[in-house]
Amino acid sequence: MSNWDARYATRANRMRASEIRELLKLLDQPDIISFAGGIPDPALFPADAFRKAYERALADDQASAALQYSVSEGYAPLREWIAANLADVGIVCGIDNIVITSGSQQALDYLGKLFLSPSDTALVTSPTYLGALQAFNAYEPEYDRLLPDQGNMTPAAYRDAAANAGGQPKFAYVNPDFSNPAGETLDRAAREKLLDLADEMNIPVIEDGAYQALRYDGEPVPPILALDIERKGDIDETRTIYCGTFSKTLSPGLRLGWVCAAKPVIRKLVLMKQAADLHSPTINQMAMYHAAVDIYEKQIELLRATYGRRRDNVLGALEKYMPEGVRWTKPEGGMFIWVTLPEGIDGAALLARAIETERVAFVPGQAFHADGSGTNTIRLSFSLASEEMADTGIARLGRLLRKVMAESAS
Amino acid sequence: MSNWDARYATRANRMRASEIRELLKLLDQPDIISFAGGIPDPALFPADAFRKAYERALADDQASAALQYSVSEGYAPLREWIAANLADVGIVCGIDNIVITSGSQQALDYLGKLFLSPSDTALVTSPTYLGALQAFNAYEPEYDRLLPDQGNMTPAAYRDAAANAGGQPKFAYVNPDFSNPAGETLDRAAREKLLDLADEMNIPVIEDGAYQALRYDGEPVPPILALDIERKGDIDETRTIYCGTFSKTLSPGLRLGWVCAAKPVIRKLVLMKQAADLHSPTINQMAMYHAAVDIYEKQIELLRATYGRRRDNVLGALEKYMPEGVRWTKPEGGMFIWVTLPEGIDGAALLARAIETERVAFVPGQAFHADGSGTNTIRLSFSLASEEMADTGIARLGRLLRKVMAESAS
Repeated sequence: MSNWDARYATRANRMRASEIRELLKLLDQPDIISFAGGIPDPALFPADAFRKAYERALADDQASAALQYSVSEGYAPLREWIAANLADVGIVCGIDNIVITSGSQQALDYLGKLFLSPSDTALVTSPTYLGALQAFNAYEPEYDRLLPDQGNMTPAAYRDAAANAGGQPKFAYVNPDFSNPAGETLDRAAREKLLDLADEMNIPVIEDGAYQALRYDGEPVPPILALDIERKGDIDETRTIYCGTFSKTLSPGLRLGWVCAAKPVIRKLVLMKQAADLHSPTINQMAMYHAAVDIYEKQIELLRATYGRRRDNVLGALEKYMPEGVRWTKPEGGMFIWVTLPEGIDGAALLARAIETERVAFVPGQAFHADGSGTNTIRLSFSLASEEMADTGIARLGRLLRKVMAESAS
Repeated sequence: MSNWDARYATRANRMRASEIRELLKLLDQPDIISFAGGIPDPALFPADAFRKAYERALADDQASAALQYSVSEGYAPLREWIAANLADVGIVCGIDNIVITSGSQQALDYLGKLFLSPSDTALVTSPTYLGALQAFNAYEPEYDRLLPDQGNMTPAAYRDAAANAGGQPKFAYVNPDFSNPAGETLDRAAREKLLDLADEMNIPVIEDGAYQALRYDGEPVPPILALDIERKGDIDETRTIYCGTFSKTLSPGLRLGWVCAAKPVIRKLVLMKQAADLHSPTINQMAMYHAAVDIYEKQIELLRATYGRRRDNVLGALEKYMPEGVRWTKPEGGMFIWVTLPEGIDGAALLARAIETERVAFVPGQAFHADGSGTNTIRLSFSLASEEMADTGIARLGRLLRKVMAESAS
């Protein structure tokens, strides 16, 4: 247990798990307007489709398989469905390029375990997905900063920095579509530049595609893995490791995601999964397959229409209520808007006051930065934001911010 | 990926994952009589109970919760059910002493991750559960040998051996009831001696209770954790970490197990689970709770009667067909009989011939030994063994063994 502190205990620049839980609990308090949790709206879950799907998985001729052990790589029909779905966005692959994981969180954990030894360096954007930092932290890496939009450091500079930290750069992790938390999308040029860098450095790119299907407007950008396949001609020659999930589309409660990558990577992940939890639940893989065949396209349409409207609700309210000096992103999809407050306004202190005096909640942005920066940022989730909730909640936040900014100016 | 070979690649003394898969595939060949897979009989799964259970989990007032994210420690009613069930065998605990895992395999992986740094020593019996070795191997430990029945080494001797290997002894792992693979049960005195050793060495005991409910005759022995609670007066003062599972009782396909231990251990495992896969599937935890309440006692009765009969089928056939010089265990429960062949007869070579000439399968025993010993042992699973299958299969095995022993004598 000697490494416990390094792996899991709180560092000043990382949010405590208990704080996240406290924030999530706020969602249950009816008088709090919360933009905190990045969770899907449960009212949109396709419960009928899942009822039918579990009935089919447990039908007389299926139940024995659904309730039994199965293979670590996952249920073949589900992997076939995923392969066909990925082909639609330019990722041409076979089922041997896919392993089913327990959500994409498990994929991030396994990839950390596969690539990172203590003191190695993971390249991440700043901000980046908090859950990725939590997964990687277990393997005690250092972090260096990717700036795919503004121009990355040179391979030599990344290597020197990693060597100074006692290891090597092992991978670049990005969440390229409507990222959690920033709500930003890497354009094609930035994706190509990232691939150039990874090719030069001979490291994998971990592409977290969690929100990829949830685009509300603008032109789709090909996944990094699709661009890598274009370059190399064959997925088995690529270095990009794509992590997908059903958590943001059909349901997070079944805990099903996948990794799509070159076969040698998938074979390693299958062995890791066998050693770590044997396989993801058979019954859920069968039910998810039935639900996906039945309703996926319609569900995506519903989510795009609904979440797109909710994004507009929050963007409209920000325009209306935010004081001068506050900036925010305009995401083309996903669930998050990233707000940058004037220098010197602390997001965590603001949250404490916001809950106490205005009964409004969000996530302070510092936790999403591996280097502890970003104190003057906050993340707003719009996945549950009705017009009224957005208007009332953002009005309260704007009122508080004006007060705080006036205090800080005086 | 520098540590890949140490962590997952095959060592001569460990069975290849691919070989296990090949063995499992044999189950699908109708002319092979297999005593290989240690899997539950799917014909005994309580499919009706699960149909009702999933209907309830997906009822209108439950579906939103069943399909949504939930807490890393697990569904509270299921943890309450487990706590009540454990109280029946002398483990007095509250729900904060329990975390739900994705099968007990995941518990073993997390415990390896929690306690082991490379070159630390894990104390295991020889033979021991292959899946435990696979889970622990990812953290690159050394192994030393527990002999709880015959008298362990002294704490000083274990510590010296571990120091020579470059680390410290970090835990003792045992599967004390009708163990996989040996089919042996530690008596109360051996359990107490193991606790004495662990107390002296100040290390945890990992108690794998996978088969604990499946006793067919003989007197139940209290779980090591129950004895530890007796000693210390309170579970939160104990050092035993109990791993349980629904895989051998209700269904392995839902991938649900649990750890029961002192709260400080559970709190660490909850943080690890949050970072590694967030939580086990909500819907499965709800369905398992309903199924357990509905049918657990009846299901255990059914399994005890059925598997007990099947054990008798195989034991009877061994008595009838095994040549002089072959020994085997007489398990009081579980799924496995451990056969020791005369010195010089190799279990792996025997398997290859058994499949080719006799169309009968089992698992060679060497893979279950961390030190590569046990070449003259094999594991027989009786979980699927009807009277006819046992009689025909063991007759074939006996015929082959006579032939091999005659060849080796000549």
